[in-house]
Amino acid sequence: MKGFKFAGICAGIKKKGGKDLGLIYCEKPASAAALFTRNKVMAAPVLLGKEKIQKGFCQAVLVNSGNANCFTGEKGIDDATTCSKLVGDCLDIGEDLVLVSSTGVIGANLPMDKFEAGIPKIVKHISFEGMDDFSDAILTTDTHRKIIKQSGEIGNKIFSIMGIAKGSGMIRPDMATMLAFICTDVDISSQELKICLSAANEKSFNRITIDGDTSTNDTLLALANASSEVQINDIDSKIIFQNALDEVCFQLAKMVVKDGEGATKFVQIIVKGAQTKQDAFKASEAIAHSNLVKTAIYGEDPNWGRITAAAGRSGAQVVPEKMDLFFNDQPLVLKGNWMGADAEKKTARIMKKNEIIITLDLNLGKETDHFFFCDLSVDYVKINADYRT
Amino acid sequence: MKGFKFAGICAGIKKKGGKDLGLIYCEKPASAAALFTRNKVMAAPVLLGKEKIQKGFCQAVLVNSGNANCFTGEKGIDDATTCSKLVGDCLDIGEDLVLVSSTGVIGANLPMDKFEAGIPKIVKHISFEGMDDFSDAILTTDTHRKIIKQSGEIGNKIFSIMGIAKGSGMIRPDMATMLAFICTDVDISSQELKICLSAANEKSFNRITIDGDTSTNDTLLALANASSEVQINDIDSKIIFQNALDEVCFQLAKMVVKDGEGATKFVQIIVKGAQTKQDAFKASEAIAHSNLVKTAIYGEDPNWGRITAAAGRSGAQVVPEKMDLFFNDQPLVLKGNWMGADAEKKTARIMKKNEIIITLDLNLGKETDHFFFCDLSVDYVKINADYRT
Repeated sequence: MKGFKFAGICAGIKKKGGKDLGLIYCEKPASAAALFTRNKVMAAPVLLGKEKIQKGFCQAVLVNSGNANCFTGEKGIDDATTCSKLVGDCLDIGEDLVLVSSTGVIGANLPMDKFEAGIPKIVKHISFEGMDDFSDAILTTDTHRKIIKQSGEIGNKIFSIMGIAKGSGMIRPDMATMLAFICTDVDISSQELKICLSAANEKSFNRITIDGDTSTNDTLLALANASSEVQINDIDSKIIFQNALDEVCFQLAKMVVKDGEGATKFVQIIVKGAQTKQDAFKASEAIAHSNLVKTAIYGEDPNWGRITAAAGRSGAQVVPEKMDLFFNDQPLVLKGNWMGADAEKKTARIMKKNEIIITLDLNLGKETDHFFFCDLSVDYVKINADYRT
Repeated sequence: MKGFKFAGICAGIKKKGGKDLGLIYCEKPASAAALFTRNKVMAAPVLLGKEKIQKGFCQAVLVNSGNANCFTGEKGIDDATTCSKLVGDCLDIGEDLVLVSSTGVIGANLPMDKFEAGIPKIVKHISFEGMDDFSDAILTTDTHRKIIKQSGEIGNKIFSIMGIAKGSGMIRPDMATMLAFICTDVDISSQELKICLSAANEKSFNRITIDGDTSTNDTLLALANASSEVQINDIDSKIIFQNALDEVCFQLAKMVVKDGEGATKFVQIIVKGAQTKQDAFKASEAIAHSNLVKTAIYGEDPNWGRITAAAGRSGAQVVPEKMDLFFNDQPLVLKGNWMGADAEKKTARIMKKNEIIITLDLNLGKETDHFFFCDLSVDYVKINADYRT
């Protein structure tokens, strides 16, 4: 995309080796908006980023994996500031236009020698084709890179949006939920960009869960450099841009869940017929977070008792005798009645698929909500029991 | 204990075989109090029990494992009623003095032929020594029986309390959280018994978690038959009885967590120095439920980043720079600073123990709370992926 350059290199930050330092560079300052974690234990780059983003402009983003620079106190803030200064110096731009972002182990100081050596090096590598390297550099337990591109047309001009994300553990719906960087060539104010980003986030990253733990480093950052000359300034252009941005965020969110630590299944739970929006949210969230539901899905067991029980404990208004439950289009429970061995057999076949839609109709009202989640597997436990060793 | 008889037999309800039908019989009607699940999807025996307990008296309790009689609609209520009538007929007591309780798979009807054959048989087996058989008959994925006996003295007279519980999965702190039956020979009104039981529950069963899922069948029932002639009618006797009851419930709750599905570690998280009671509860609950914390404990990793991050997302007021974190007596974080490799090494040795106390001091106030929980292991996933097959 015109005006955006990327790079990703091995700087020696990750113990296991591989690319671990990434850089996004905008040829001129871009409108910028960001959403950050709501965890009260916030990483140093998040604390710094929250301040810097107020200005609404950004020209470079440095991202490292392998170390979260979280729970590192004053030293952590100093280190993050030093990194942005180094990037500013090497790119010959103001330090206030540089954001930093980190992901990895909590509680260790950044290895500053690696950054002091790595930053001058990465600046030399930036190119228009560097997004794959950048994408690889920000991964931790992810098994593959996550990049989405989307284009649209406004007033006979083409605009583009590209999203790059990392995330596969410590994922739950409470603000951004991982690292994601959106680059677009539209001409939009940072205030408008923030509104669009929040709306897209609510429908995507705020509706996914892997393990229910909110990260300390979650950051969703959008940069708009106006290089397409497509202005987002009226209601029609806003709708077109919002739809394209929604799609990018939704596809990225889906990729994050699919790459969930140890995940073997990608599941959407839809709760319909709730009395209130809040009830629909509560019931779908409880089901998506239930370890008993998630292990049953791993075992390819259409265990409807666990699903309805999770809805029952969610705090939402539910009446067992009114519930309908479907796996894809196959009903297994109608008005609280199990549909029998034949329906169970058909459902069991559906459970063998990699993608499953579970629909719980509470039949009490008109509200609906949904969550995307994955199963809880033996590998999830192994990955997380061994993470620091 | 004088006046209480028990039995446990194989009635053919459990697929895997073994004892699955239990009976408690009081020679005369006992004062009775009970607490039930708060899950809105309630099993038939819970719905029935909630009504019957209003009367404050009970003379027999029939408990089966292998089938929860939950999500079984009108048929489930009819079946539970038929069971109590059969028990009443065979014991020659009023059906209104019989409670029933079930645990096992959700969503299947009770195999009534097994109950019709089993109830006349079990009534013949009741004896003063039958508590081990009863205890075995109510287990599901538990690996061993859970019985606690406690005695006390009031006015030169000895009283006793015996508690029998089952529970190792679908355990979270929201009311009773499993099946537990308390028999005591004190003379106490059902109203007073309910007050004592609620207080004991709050400190024990409401402070344990295995997997965060509240069961549909949770029942904590206490029966007092007055056979010791120890009256609980003044403040002194109430304190002594409450202490003994607290101890029985606490020991049973501890046994349930220790026998948690796949559990290899028994952990207490204490949150101190919180600004409010609610904050102390929220932070300790979030830590005890975090899959990332639980898998780290399984991996014997003192992963303090995950513990402090879970507190950070709990909604409690926390300031990272004020936090102290201890594993047993070993500090690993003081005022937000990691204490270094030597402290980490000592902590890693503590993590190899079977029982660990983790203390998080928020240093913001005077409130404290705690939870008992277990780790999340590969076996937990295997047990719950295969439960119905």
